[in-house]
Amino acid sequence: MEPVKALLFDVFGTVVDWRGGVIRDVAALAARHGAALDPGLFADQWRAEYRPAMALVRSGHLPWTNLDDLHRRTLDRLAPQAGLDGLAEAELSWLNACWHRLDPWPDAVGGLGRLRRRYIVAALSNGNVALLVNMARRAGLPWDFIASAELFRHYKPDPQTYLGAAGLLGLAPAEVMLVAAHNDDLSAAAALGLRTAFVRRPRELGPGHEQNLQPAGDYTCVATDFLDLATQLGA
Amino acid sequence: MEPVKALLFDVFGTVVDWRGGVIRDVAALAARHGAALDPGLFADQWRAEYRPAMALVRSGHLPWTNLDDLHRRTLDRLAPQAGLDGLAEAELSWLNACWHRLDPWPDAVGGLGRLRRRYIVAALSNGNVALLVNMARRAGLPWDFIASAELFRHYKPDPQTYLGAAGLLGLAPAEVMLVAAHNDDLSAAAALGLRTAFVRRPRELGPGHEQNLQPAGDYTCVATDFLDLATQLGA
Repeated sequence: MEPVKALLFDVFGTVVDWRGGVIRDVAALAARHGAALDPGLFADQWRAEYRPAMALVRSGHLPWTNLDDLHRRTLDRLAPQAGLDGLAEAELSWLNACWHRLDPWPDAVGGLGRLRRRYIVAALSNGNVALLVNMARRAGLPWDFIASAELFRHYKPDPQTYLGAAGLLGLAPAEVMLVAAHNDDLSAAAALGLRTAFVRRPRELGPGHEQNLQPAGDYTCVATDFLDLATQLGA
Repeated sequence: MEPVKALLFDVFGTVVDWRGGVIRDVAALAARHGAALDPGLFADQWRAEYRPAMALVRSGHLPWTNLDDLHRRTLDRLAPQAGLDGLAEAELSWLNACWHRLDPWPDAVGGLGRLRRRYIVAALSNGNVALLVNMARRAGLPWDFIASAELFRHYKPDPQTYLGAAGLLGLAPAEVMLVAAHNDDLSAAAALGLRTAFVRRPRELGPGHEQNLQPAGDYTCVATDFLDLATQLGA
């Protein structure tokens, strides 16, 4: 069995708390405008359009469009529906960039720091490069490399993303492990020969959704957080 | 005038001392084999093939080939000529990877650390991703992003590299500054609307070549090293 040399990390939900970050910023904007929206519902509705929007790119109905621009298409429709009418362009642009300002889970920075001593640690995310760079600078995520879907013009779970990232690192799929809190991402990577680590993020989807975030595959590792993963991987 | 938000760094010669690193490793290998080669001459010959090799890719005589593989094509021809006969594959592979093990100039890590507090700092190099990732980990280069020519399948000074890096960062050319010790790289970037910083690296080419490394353009900044550049840029 070849040793693992690099860990690729899913980002939204696995490294950072997207729901909490969107709630924080949309609630602040709603308060400034006296809008009575439900920030949790708004976050869930925005995120619910993520897969359909990527599917439009995958099917060719949209040319390549990066995640900031997909988020903005959805936001332009959702904001008025949610009672956020007449926002200035600067406000819409600020809110759309809330995805650049997501906070890491409490263990994430410390765990990445430990793992990085032994392994190459890279983001492998559907976020665009600017989003991931801004997020990493703000949150202190110590990436050795940022492998954005934007580099491959394919969104996960398309094979071009997993194989593209391994190829750029000069590694065989079996030398690379995908770390994610999501079964679909991990099963796509496993089918291509990557190793897999499921990390439990029971709070990702908010209260009452813990059961939707259980491991449902034969993964190389299952970990409670990045510190546990570091211990399991000898880092 | 738009403020600069990101600095793109040429790497070989600007951030790291390629000649000293190649000399160190080829001299070690030659000593183990009792080969009487001139390590400085070997380094210069190897580097002299860099532009012609990229030109074969640019003209389409070679399909896209990354820098590790271009270096290896040259090495396979140079090593026997230089008296390094009968090297094992592991030795050739180790020597080819000397480009991953180059040391930074003494001011580079400290200067990048200061500059990064105020600006996005990214590599923009003809080195391939694996080379640049391994180099950064070994040398402690704190890149926010690694924009390798490999991402664009174009080598500098092709416009796709400068504009591609700015685009991935979500920035206009005028918001980006190329930092390099080489006039050709900087003049290509300036022609596309990027800002430019010439950094003096008089030792890059070895003794007697200082006069080949003078600024010969109307650059935004001319700096003696990265610490001086940080001071000039208020970082």
